[in-house]
Amino acid sequence: MHGRNPGRVGGSAGIGTEENAAAGGDRSAVTVIGLGAMGAALANAFLDSGRPTTVWNRSPEKADGLVAEGAVRAATATEAVSASPLVVVCVLDYRAVHDVLGPAGAALSGRVLVNLTNGTPEQARRTAAWAAERGADYLDGGIMAVPPMIGSPESVLLYSGSADAFEAHRRTLEILGTGRHLGADAGLAPLHDLAMLTGAYGMFAGFLQAVAMVGTERAEVAEFTSSLLVPWLNAMTTELPRLAERVDTGDHATDVGSNLAMQAAAFPNLVDAAGAQGVDAGLLAPVRALLDRGVAEGHGAEELSSLVELLRKPAPA
Amino acid sequence: MHGRNPGRVGGSAGIGTEENAAAGGDRSAVTVIGLGAMGAALANAFLDSGRPTTVWNRSPEKADGLVAEGAVRAATATEAVSASPLVVVCVLDYRAVHDVLGPAGAALSGRVLVNLTNGTPEQARRTAAWAAERGADYLDGGIMAVPPMIGSPESVLLYSGSADAFEAHRRTLEILGTGRHLGADAGLAPLHDLAMLTGAYGMFAGFLQAVAMVGTERAEVAEFTSSLLVPWLNAMTTELPRLAERVDTGDHATDVGSNLAMQAAAFPNLVDAAGAQGVDAGLLAPVRALLDRGVAEGHGAEELSSLVELLRKPAPA
Repeated sequence: MHGRNPGRVGGSAGIGTEENAAAGGDRSAVTVIGLGAMGAALANAFLDSGRPTTVWNRSPEKADGLVAEGAVRAATATEAVSASPLVVVCVLDYRAVHDVLGPAGAALSGRVLVNLTNGTPEQARRTAAWAAERGADYLDGGIMAVPPMIGSPESVLLYSGSADAFEAHRRTLEILGTGRHLGADAGLAPLHDLAMLTGAYGMFAGFLQAVAMVGTERAEVAEFTSSLLVPWLNAMTTELPRLAERVDTGDHATDVGSNLAMQAAAFPNLVDAAGAQGVDAGLLAPVRALLDRGVAEGHGAEELSSLVELLRKPAPA
Repeated sequence: MHGRNPGRVGGSAGIGTEENAAAGGDRSAVTVIGLGAMGAALANAFLDSGRPTTVWNRSPEKADGLVAEGAVRAATATEAVSASPLVVVCVLDYRAVHDVLGPAGAALSGRVLVNLTNGTPEQARRTAAWAAERGADYLDGGIMAVPPMIGSPESVLLYSGSADAFEAHRRTLEILGTGRHLGADAGLAPLHDLAMLTGAYGMFAGFLQAVAMVGTERAEVAEFTSSLLVPWLNAMTTELPRLAERVDTGDHATDVGSNLAMQAAAFPNLVDAAGAQGVDAGLLAPVRALLDRGVAEGHGAEELSSLVELLRKPAPA
């Protein structure tokens, strides 16, 4: 009998039936390969939902805590793959995916492989082809959450690859968080994952720079962040869908009174003020260069959204 | 009789009395100098609240619409300054502030000058000293809003300089939006304004890069932005106060399972994926360099917040 809380099966996770037990139903078995912080969180969520859960990790002791909670420890990767119709892999990188699954390739036939390892679209596409050669259905996935969020609806997981596999195992996969299938091209989930991470890194870089500037004058940056910066950023995110529509339509005419030329003219203030506070302004340099390029290439009267086009073509020599 | 909607005076703007009419009360007069998109929005908000409003602009025809709504057109900047105890200036830059107010300096004595022009902390401090020499109380301000938001509580205005002037005219100033006085140093409002703009530019840069990447595979980036990126960024902003507390305490030990070394190791995926999509990754270069520097300087086991310290000291040669 597996599962940390078998009594909870049939509760919030839904009512089990023999039909759906065969493929993605309430009690279908799942294997988790890779038990780092994220892999362990995934396995824990399956156990919490009462799923028969088989686990495997190159360093076997990483499974100890999960085994104590009811997981089955496989002796080899092949045994782990063979234990369940759904095999979830979450390891360091794609090289590790192939190191681990290479010897177990034959056992993948007829199973669904869900690869939640961080990587690039190209790596996902190559791995999808590799899995297809072994008779496995493949889903690549991106986890938009930190490990403590796994199992809550706020955790969002992006999937791409086999739509049939996603639908068949949707209920199992949604134990981990809200699932979104983006298309048959296995590269789409990592592409969107990396794009969202890129967006977050932009925001984090802006935060670091803002806090470095303000912190030179005030001991407390937490108060600035909570009461001024975060509400301001949340207000600014509401502008993004409007700008994205302009990217879609290609019409970047401004109607809010602040065009690229005005922004480029005011931008040096940000750099100068950072310098005057003794703060390095290197994070701002490429933003300034892009604004200046937008004006130089004739987009001065347009909105910020027109800069997307410049990122898609090389700067003139 | 001034004001577009005199009947609204005593309504949402509060009940006028002779006492508070003298200094910042419900009907005290206000002058707005500079009638670009933002200056006109400020004057409009004062008119909407029933305030006697005098306006002046170097190109006088910019006042035509406001005069039709009940504003008084001053013939000169000196006449504009002399018309009201509270003088609000919002022009292109600090050079324009001094060009416009220089000849009217003597008329400033005994008045409150509120300068909402974009500039740097150093420019604000110099202008505060210039105003003090002329016997004026001075407030520097930063407007965290676009013109259409002026007059709503979502519009936030940061002020620094004379606390007495802020308190005396608070009710008038809050016609424009929520007011926050940050301290007696006139440079604090522009410093915080520029820091918040910096934070927003980081987020916008991340958005541009994310949309450029995703848009190479999907025609529609609006759907990606609304349904995936914005909710994700809003979730990520909730991390910022926690990171800011670490900056305040100097304790950057990680407890969420993703330290700088792991982030630096995964970051090249963002750059490689952009390149594979034909998207320039120049916006990401200084973020990658900062992460790598954090690891190289021994912060690999810490959180992103530790990078703030690196921005405050030059990179080792």
